[in-house]
Amino acid sequence: MTQQLNSLSLDDARRIVAAGEARAAEIGQPMNIAVVDAGGDLVMHVRMDGAWRGSVDIAINKAFTARAFDIETAELADLAKPGGPFYGIQASNNGKVMVFAGGAPVRADGVIVGAVGVSGGTGEQDTTVCEAATAGF
Amino acid sequence: MTQQLNSLSLDDARRIVAAGEARAAEIGQPMNIAVVDAGGDLVMHVRMDGAWRGSVDIAINKAFTARAFDIETAELADLAKPGGPFYGIQASNNGKVMVFAGGAPVRADGVIVGAVGVSGGTGEQDTTVCEAATAGF
Amino acid sequence: MTQQLNSLSLDDARRIVAAGEARAAEIGQPMNIAVVDAGGDLVMHVRMDGAWRGSVDIAINKAFTARAFDIETAELADLAKPGGPFYGIQASNNGKVMVFAGGAPVRADGVIVGAVGVSGGTGEQDTTVCEAATAGF
Amino acid sequence: MTQQLNSLSLDDARRIVAAGEARAAEIGQPMNIAVVDAGGDLVMHVRMDGAWRGSVDIAINKAFTARAFDIETAELADLAKPGGPFYGIQASNNGKVMVFAGGAPVRADGVIVGAVGVSGGTGEQDTTVCEAATAGF
Repeated sequence: MTQQLNSLSLDDARRIVAAGEARAAEIGQPMNIAVVDAGGDLVMHVRMDGAWRGSVDIAINKAFTARAFDIETAELADLAKPGGPFYGIQASNNGKVMVFAGGAPVRADGVIVGAVGVSGGTGEQDTTVCEAATAGF
Repeated sequence: MTQQLNSLSLDDARRIVAAGEARAAEIGQPMNIAVVDAGGDLVMHVRMDGAWRGSVDIAINKAFTARAFDIETAELADLAKPGGPFYGIQASNNGKVMVFAGGAPVRADGVIVGAVGVSGGTGEQDTTVCEAATAGF
Repeated sequence: MTQQLNSLSLDDARRIVAAGEARAAEIGQPMNIAVVDAGGDLVMHVRMDGAWRGSVDIAINKAFTARAFDIETAELADLAKPGGPFYGIQASNNGKVMVFAGGAPVRADGVIVGAVGVSGGTGEQDTTVCEAATAGF
Repeated sequence: MTQQLNSLSLDDARRIVAAGEARAAEIGQPMNIAVVDAGGDLVMHVRMDGAWRGSVDIAINKAFTARAFDIETAELADLAKPGGPFYGIQASNNGKVMVFAGGAPVRADGVIVGAVGVSGGTGEQDTTVCEAATAGF
């Protein structure tokens, strides 16, 4: 018997991105906000005017990473440090594994249905926008 | 003296994507729609529910290509054929050059300010959605 | 409504490179000097006779990085250390993120219009040439 | 006994680029012009204002290709066609082999000392600028 994969939809992604954008505007820091589905593929991305160009890739890959390992990327930061149990994981998956704050899974009834990635500010700024975005779901 | 580079904004990208989505819904074919700015970097991407996962990359790269060479990607198809003057251009830019229909520059007062890339259907379907998207600007 | 993106021109890049070359000659260390525009794309590159071949890529990518994140690359060095808030950022953007000294944004009236990247010597040597180059703008 | 590798210098590259720029201005088509040395590494690159962003990579790689195989890239176009003896060569060297017009070796006393790559227009435009550039040596 096949398994069922619950996944967020584009409409879900729109709400998630809108909530992230609102928080980014609130703290006055333009951001890149990406949403992937349960399959880890991009559903929606927004780069706010003035947000870093180099963060397009990072936001998308934070979202990828959060779903690839069903983990908040901030947790990976610690695990991937020299001496940590996942040290070197950054080299895997063609460089798409981001090990710093700003990526988080999105859950529906406790089940992960996708993930969000945020990049464009300090770790704290990325984190607060990421939290607002996931809460927007 | 610096030069001025006019670029579309996120609000412009939203209108472009919405127009593309509307056309995609009309023809009943879910699509990936990407918008890049004058610098060729992603501003917005949407994957409609049910659209091909492999087309995320293609839509983004069609938009990249349309701005990288200030050309409709359908024109490149011909130029890049064996025997054509740009045969082999696909190998450049780390594989980001897409030489089939669905990418087009976006112009404001005749000046290119960004580009759109659409992927998810036949060449004809990608083209009609791309045309609707650019017209939405 | 489109936004305006001010960007340095080739003439600007020539002055920047010339100022960098003059400083490199002064300290007796041949250098690679690269300039990117507001979109992060290469405008000019010079490898002085005798400068490291491996530094072509590094200089271009330092300039890319300085514009991608609107930051001096020396600052990233600290942020990207194990335990730092951006640890692992090097894996992003297909390996183009350089996190050591020698890259800096170029500003016109406080607005970033491009960036410079210098590579070919010690961190101190790269830095002094980079500073001279940006001052040449 | 070691062999001697004659190579063009940065001053040579400046003359080559200037000659190419002059011809590009004459035909009214902004270009990317790259020069590599006998080792195939970039010595100088210039992107004229308004020249295609996607052609930075192509110009550099045309110059690389012309030196890598000591051949004009236009000749490779034919050899690399389906059925041709070098069909598939584009996949080699990490995608840096460009098989269309605009790259040519630079010779001193009949010996190849570097190469030029030009990209930014039609095959004819790239070719005439490339010829002017090599003649400027």
